[in-house]
Amino acid sequence: MKAKSPDESRAETTVLMMPPDANPMGNVFGGVILKHVDLIAGIVAKRHAGHGNIVTATMDRMTFMRPVFIGNALVLSARINYVRRSSMEVEVTVDSENFDEGARVRTGTAFVTLVALDKRGKATEVPQLLLKTKEENKRFEDGKKRMERRLHEAGKL
Amino acid sequence: MKAKSPDESRAETTVLMMPPDANPMGNVFGGVILKHVDLIAGIVAKRHAGHGNIVTATMDRMTFMRPVFIGNALVLSARINYVRRSSMEVEVTVDSENFDEGARVRTGTAFVTLVALDKRGKATEVPQLLLKTKEENKRFEDGKKRMERRLHEAGKL
Amino acid sequence: MKAKSPDESRAETTVLMMPPDANPMGNVFGGVILKHVDLIAGIVAKRHAGHGNIVTATMDRMTFMRPVFIGNALVLSARINYVRRSSMEVEVTVDSENFDEGARVRTGTAFVTLVALDKRGKATEVPQLLLKTKEENKRFEDGKKRMERRLHEAGKL
Amino acid sequence: MKAKSPDESRAETTVLMMPPDANPMGNVFGGVILKHVDLIAGIVAKRHAGHGNIVTATMDRMTFMRPVFIGNALVLSARINYVRRSSMEVEVTVDSENFDEGARVRTGTAFVTLVALDKRGKATEVPQLLLKTKEENKRFEDGKKRMERRLHEAGKL
Amino acid sequence: MKAKSPDESRAETTVLMMPPDANPMGNVFGGVILKHVDLIAGIVAKRHAGHGNIVTATMDRMTFMRPVFIGNALVLSARINYVRRSSMEVEVTVDSENFDEGARVRTGTAFVTLVALDKRGKATEVPQLLLKTKEENKRFEDGKKRMERRLHEAGKL
Amino acid sequence: MKAKSPDESRAETTVLMMPPDANPMGNVFGGVILKHVDLIAGIVAKRHAGHGNIVTATMDRMTFMRPVFIGNALVLSARINYVRRSSMEVEVTVDSENFDEGARVRTGTAFVTLVALDKRGKATEVPQLLLKTKEENKRFEDGKKRMERRLHEAGKL
Repeated sequence: MKAKSPDESRAETTVLMMPPDANPMGNVFGGVILKHVDLIAGIVAKRHAGHGNIVTATMDRMTFMRPVFIGNALVLSARINYVRRSSMEVEVTVDSENFDEGARVRTGTAFVTLVALDKRGKATEVPQLLLKTKEENKRFEDGKKRMERRLHEAGKL
Repeated sequence: MKAKSPDESRAETTVLMMPPDANPMGNVFGGVILKHVDLIAGIVAKRHAGHGNIVTATMDRMTFMRPVFIGNALVLSARINYVRRSSMEVEVTVDSENFDEGARVRTGTAFVTLVALDKRGKATEVPQLLLKTKEENKRFEDGKKRMERRLHEAGKL
Repeated sequence: MKAKSPDESRAETTVLMMPPDANPMGNVFGGVILKHVDLIAGIVAKRHAGHGNIVTATMDRMTFMRPVFIGNALVLSARINYVRRSSMEVEVTVDSENFDEGARVRTGTAFVTLVALDKRGKATEVPQLLLKTKEENKRFEDGKKRMERRLHEAGKL
Repeated sequence: MKAKSPDESRAETTVLMMPPDANPMGNVFGGVILKHVDLIAGIVAKRHAGHGNIVTATMDRMTFMRPVFIGNALVLSARINYVRRSSMEVEVTVDSENFDEGARVRTGTAFVTLVALDKRGKATEVPQLLLKTKEENKRFEDGKKRMERRLHEAGKL
Repeated sequence: MKAKSPDESRAETTVLMMPPDANPMGNVFGGVILKHVDLIAGIVAKRHAGHGNIVTATMDRMTFMRPVFIGNALVLSARINYVRRSSMEVEVTVDSENFDEGARVRTGTAFVTLVALDKRGKATEVPQLLLKTKEENKRFEDGKKRMERRLHEAGKL
Repeated sequence: MKAKSPDESRAETTVLMMPPDANPMGNVFGGVILKHVDLIAGIVAKRHAGHGNIVTATMDRMTFMRPVFIGNALVLSARINYVRRSSMEVEVTVDSENFDEGARVRTGTAFVTLVALDKRGKATEVPQLLLKTKEENKRFEDGKKRMERRLHEAGKL
């Protein structure tokens, strides 16, 4: 398996928030945002892995910093930070855009880990990350620390 | 505002997992589970608060311990642990049930914090928790510690 | 097949009513309620049967006693009353909850009959009901009468 | 208000059955069918009433005579039979069509009663039925009997 | 394969427009209308073909002549005009109905071409059109001209 | 109103195709693709206009060049080509991505025209296009020709 750069799997999605995405006051549900976060993280992981059944293992704490409303666009941008055998950490930034004010603000940032499984449900290795820039190396190191903290807190390290 | 016991706001929901909830291999998306977690947590918080616009502030790290498949039922049970002025911590246990095997297993546990807002979007106080049992007091203390950790990690404490 | 008590298959679900569930005046469609009634009845029947393909055979007349609105929670509670070879009668109570008023009222009660089919589509026997309490025996007898009335009215008895 | 003939409000709808409409065995849920029955009945009642907020009052027992599968079309045909001040009885026939066999069979027939409400939620009168043919008169008489039976069984007559 | 008349495959559908079908101002999205146009065209083509996997090849320019709003019914009427080996042209008229005004107006007309594929994805012949009336012949000739124009503009003729 | 460059309103979206998006053979419906095309075109037009109620006026003929399947990602990229008072032409390229083959192919290209309306439903002017590059000028000229052809064919020019 040839190593792949993080740029090869980056993904962006833009979703208009509709009435069933929000409570009767117009506030978009956090869970609706998390659903879109998980979907786009899955697309990045699937692009990087290039094979296998990709499933979500964990989603780190997500803080909803600003409200999102019906009629706003949710703009999600996702990239892979770190790879460890069959595990991948994907970072998703969530912006919300108010068209009438022409404003786009950060709503939150999510870290999702996903695992590639083979047909029998066993973890299967994915390509390594090809790191070129200083920023990519920094992201990899930070991702590694977060992964170790997750494993540690889960009693697996 | 009269204090309320955790039992007054408990909620349970049972949801059959359908094809659009899962990837083509039949694995239910983590994001779909998180959407249901957030919805039922919101119902508990709304019941406890009894007024105001309830919005999700954070969802702690969720670990998906076992896969859920199309045709399984997702059984979510939610209860309030802790209240701090306008903030509430709700704990949601997620089980998945395989009807053909008659088995029901824990998929994960989520801690969601929600805030009650008034009409102008300002945080508004909610009823205090009426704690009777030892277990309720333990849950309250644990919730308090988690809340302080969240505030600390967000640089707010 | 071991007989099962009605308590082993009981199910509850709580669903927040959203804009696409209602007409433009905010009244939740009867058909949306019936869809949730049928789903939760199917879950109870599937739990009791423990095997087979569960399909709905009839839904008795349902009277919508009170309106349900967007923003209300629909709380459905379902239990099995009666079993006759491959047929099961499930009773579903439908409450609607208005969070701002803290009120929960009965919207209606539904009786659903479901049948277990094998792989070739033939009716297949399900476990008998293990009746312990007086109430369970009363429900069984009432269920039997309703079933006979249905068969009679369908010209099958 | 001018009386209207049943033909002025007739409606037909054709809906392709998709994976989320069915259980994992491919059998379309009874509740999905009932949802479409209620929607088309509401359209007929709204056409006849010409004003007001139309809500479903009852749905008579519906028997699902034949299974419907993913990939089938559901063909619903709805017409008004009977009017009593603010109440209307709509009859909906449900056919399912298997394209590969070129076959269309009756799945069931539903009788739905709907009421027109004014802005304060009070029942408001709707146009009378203009009956011309023998069949229309027959349907009106049968509808009247069913309505009286419903009222009688509900303890309102 | 026996030729079939256009009447044998005609289809009509009536769909109530709901909040998720529209922008926050209440205007139904053009794309939602196009989705329903394509679905009903597919049903007509599937009825005519009687076999095979029906896929959409083109949708001609659609002009949205009048706005459609939440609470309106979309009434779509579809019929086959022209057949050329494995290709079919289906014409769909789109009306929108405002119940409160009792008015029904033409929103647009769409021409969809669909192709029947066999199991390996190869185009497979469908029944010829049995033309009886002058109008059916006129529709066939017009459909033929449109099809030739499409092929010409696609550089295939 | 300050003129805006096409880059200021560009949008991209990535959507995983699910079972309800496709026919039983797994082929994604053309209408589902058109729905996403219209949504992303609306987001671009809304960004450019910065105010008003954006509605779709026309969608040019769309040719579906290659099949899209469940499990593929639909990648839509949208940009504004041309502005004429209150009208905008948005071009949307539609790619489909097969993760297992790592392949991404062009499915089609759509030209959508949208209009900005004020609160009374009257057309309202939008910012002019700030053209810098040769390519942007070329796109503007081509868009102008298409717009004139549309108006001509609609008998409006």
